[in-house]
Amino acid sequence: MAEVSTDVSSSERRRSGGREGRKALRAQAALDQRDTAVPYITRRMPVYNFFSDEQIDRICRNGAKIVKEIGLEFREDAESLALWKQAGAKVEGERVRCDESMLLDIVRSVPSQFTLHARNPKRSVQIGGDATVFMPTYGPPFVRSLKEGRRYATIEDFRNFSKLTYLSPALHHNGGTLCEPTDLPVNKRHLEMLYSHARYSDKSFLGSVTAPERAQDSVDFAKIIFGEEFTRNNAVISAIINVNSPLVFDSTMTGALKVYARANQPCIVSPFILSGAMGPVTVAGTLSQIYAESLFGAALVQLYHKGAPHIMGTFATSLSMLSGAPCFGTAESSMVQLGCAQIARRLGFPLRSSGALCGSKVTDAQAAYESAISMQTNLFAGNHVVMHSAGWLEGGLVMDYEKFVIDADQAMGFVRLATAPDIDENQLAFDALREVGPGGHYLGCAHTQTNFETASHNSPFVDNESFERWKAEGEKDMVARAAEKVEKMLDEYEAPPIDAALDENLRDFVQKRKESMPDSWI
Amino acid sequence: MAEVSTDVSSSERRRSGGREGRKALRAQAALDQRDTAVPYITRRMPVYNFFSDEQIDRICRNGAKIVKEIGLEFREDAESLALWKQAGAKVEGERVRCDESMLLDIVRSVPSQFTLHARNPKRSVQIGGDATVFMPTYGPPFVRSLKEGRRYATIEDFRNFSKLTYLSPALHHNGGTLCEPTDLPVNKRHLEMLYSHARYSDKSFLGSVTAPERAQDSVDFAKIIFGEEFTRNNAVISAIINVNSPLVFDSTMTGALKVYARANQPCIVSPFILSGAMGPVTVAGTLSQIYAESLFGAALVQLYHKGAPHIMGTFATSLSMLSGAPCFGTAESSMVQLGCAQIARRLGFPLRSSGALCGSKVTDAQAAYESAISMQTNLFAGNHVVMHSAGWLEGGLVMDYEKFVIDADQAMGFVRLATAPDIDENQLAFDALREVGPGGHYLGCAHTQTNFETASHNSPFVDNESFERWKAEGEKDMVARAAEKVEKMLDEYEAPPIDAALDENLRDFVQKRKESMPDSWI
Repeated sequence: MAEVSTDVSSSERRRSGGREGRKALRAQAALDQRDTAVPYITRRMPVYNFFSDEQIDRICRNGAKIVKEIGLEFREDAESLALWKQAGAKVEGERVRCDESMLLDIVRSVPSQFTLHARNPKRSVQIGGDATVFMPTYGPPFVRSLKEGRRYATIEDFRNFSKLTYLSPALHHNGGTLCEPTDLPVNKRHLEMLYSHARYSDKSFLGSVTAPERAQDSVDFAKIIFGEEFTRNNAVISAIINVNSPLVFDSTMTGALKVYARANQPCIVSPFILSGAMGPVTVAGTLSQIYAESLFGAALVQLYHKGAPHIMGTFATSLSMLSGAPCFGTAESSMVQLGCAQIARRLGFPLRSSGALCGSKVTDAQAAYESAISMQTNLFAGNHVVMHSAGWLEGGLVMDYEKFVIDADQAMGFVRLATAPDIDENQLAFDALREVGPGGHYLGCAHTQTNFETASHNSPFVDNESFERWKAEGEKDMVARAAEKVEKMLDEYEAPPIDAALDENLRDFVQKRKESMPDSWI
Repeated sequence: MAEVSTDVSSSERRRSGGREGRKALRAQAALDQRDTAVPYITRRMPVYNFFSDEQIDRICRNGAKIVKEIGLEFREDAESLALWKQAGAKVEGERVRCDESMLLDIVRSVPSQFTLHARNPKRSVQIGGDATVFMPTYGPPFVRSLKEGRRYATIEDFRNFSKLTYLSPALHHNGGTLCEPTDLPVNKRHLEMLYSHARYSDKSFLGSVTAPERAQDSVDFAKIIFGEEFTRNNAVISAIINVNSPLVFDSTMTGALKVYARANQPCIVSPFILSGAMGPVTVAGTLSQIYAESLFGAALVQLYHKGAPHIMGTFATSLSMLSGAPCFGTAESSMVQLGCAQIARRLGFPLRSSGALCGSKVTDAQAAYESAISMQTNLFAGNHVVMHSAGWLEGGLVMDYEKFVIDADQAMGFVRLATAPDIDENQLAFDALREVGPGGHYLGCAHTQTNFETASHNSPFVDNESFERWKAEGEKDMVARAAEKVEKMLDEYEAPPIDAALDENLRDFVQKRKESMPDSWI
């Protein structure tokens, strides 16, 4: 089991004293601090409705027409087609049409909120309701760093990003395919990814969807952590099921969907739309298609397992008609995000959207502008799960080390915005106003002294120093500072504690599954 | 009059043919395109109320207590103190206290919206109501560019930024002190700035406030453009009056305020608060202070000229308790922005806030993250005038050439978001959905062909190309592309037409006022 790193035994190092001992103590202090971080955002800010109710009505009616008159295709999946027929849909070949009311009836059993459990119960997250959960980026085949530039990702990168996610208090969930470990056989990657999530972090994580048996491995892996019975009755592992938009579910995706649904584990069924290619070029057309695809997806889950937890997903953005490339942080993608949130509220589904997206090749002003717009829109929209909240570059082809820590740091600001304190006497500060009076200075007053540590979020990672000091310290831009931060975080990283027997069982499972099949590279 | 550049005579060059002629034609085409740009944003997106009505009640009640129990000081200004006394306030020394109801009564005459006229009537902007107006950055003593780095600003820089503002369709107003022309005598800068606004652009602009006589020069300058009577009855020039927070108006500011108010021109009275220094460290405390300062400011304007147009202003952000430096794009500054918008709506005042703020020294990821957060928050808040929408670096000490065009380009996305199209049959695209069907592709369909140019905003300046193409084209980040864009814009710039006699009169005014006083450098 060469791929599983063994540098996770921190207690020995802690006992060893000296430099290592001090390092361990610092790391422990950091860990303790993390324990005070909230496991997820409990929103206090109200949701924002960009569209009027009447506009959402029109979009949903248009979606209902898609459901009834155009329908969706479920390709190479006789089992799902049979279920649709049995439920009362009109099935012609692989095309499925029905009344919207039939689907709305089926999805009534979708829970509006549920707990997604983590290995460390303190890091379990609420999905839906007033909760928002940030996840890191999912899926890039490449990584990039200031030091090494752009290259194919490896399992070592994956482990690094699992560690960095664990160390980031504003990332509430460990994500899934943090990057594609291209140095491992395709059919065994998921096993090392699962282990890396479970061992280098203690937050919840996503399972595999690239083949039904890999989905089953993911569920079985989760059962080792959570137990058979607990897993049967609780959400412990979730998965991204992308719709082959427009209006197609393929058998790979429904194959994985079935595994998770039957295991009572939540799928995040996500239409994947670049408007103008996989959906209409207009915002309302895209939203109508998302409505239809989401309704079919949620209903299919319920047909496989009535009452299974479910998350409506979206990944939709506009397409550059100049280059055919996806664009991010655009007004139109914000509108789709905001509209999806309203549709999800209407349906009563928890909603997953996407965060720090950008098309830039490097972590420059474009990357940050697009990421900030997209992340912040999620907050106003009131989305429940924000995927791709850290690290995303180049339309998702690259997981970037520096952008990861930049995004994760900025995410803390969004956490603060969403969890504004109530307005009490201390917040109103009348006594301080009277004490300082006209022309006075607040720095020294008692109210400031008492409140300054909690009153605002000042990331030490953001530079607000004077020009002269910034210059004297080497004129470092944010990426240069981020590179230092990445190195420090990985250097000081200490793995979360894990029961030795559980760790052994997880390793055994991974080892046995790997031994059960020859390597495949396609 | 050496400082007034003479490179503004475009008609000669247009007639000259050849390379110059082609350049002029291209510039003319760009000009024509600008004529199709909307002069300001007419918002279709609803405003977002971050705080509950009850929370805003508490803040306003706290503000009312400040008004009554603490009061404000109007320093070295017997005239204003006499007016307050006459209005029924309790005046002790320079301290003025009164009932909130007295101020609310006085400010009833503040118009909730008005037109701010530009030299070119097509560029006149609506202030208040459903309008939002973006202005460039105000006040920096330094400029920065990729080529030259950071240095003191000159009148040539000022002219450049006036030209760049004119050329930016998402900047609706030409701003004021685009940068401080430090190469000119302090007491004559305002004259060259006024002329540069009027000649290199045809958008509305701000007047001087650094001394009452400079304010008077500004009003007199505007009268040459708009005529005595029109100026008496219409808003044609506005000015930023900063409150010396906490709770002080000094005589320089009230001196300028009187000039504009008496001339029936709008003041933007702006509490300037770094929370924890010039106001309480908490959001609600800061908002309470803003309420009190804004109410006094608006009332003072009305005491000098009942019914004069007025804009409530804010510049408030948090302070780093690590370095004492202002922080930008923080959650707390967003909350203050959002709260101010709600207070302004309650008072019925148009509101000016601040846009692309950041603390960064260069246009890096930090600069863009902070700017995007701040700009976008303005949009959701529903603010009417967004100052500092382009170019701001280093807490406002620097006007940056590249950041200016980056911000101005991104601002177009915010314009798009705020002016979303209605959801009609074309938007809903049902026929396209039926035509393409499951598994099809939208690129070629008629609906896409008809709509792609208007359906989404794809800035050609944003890079969404493939990694390979980006690499082949020199691996340019956004700042490098911006530097090229700045050069191209200034190279192709053509001044807007101006009546020769008017131009002569403006030049004469500037010249005579300059000759009337010796240079002063303090």
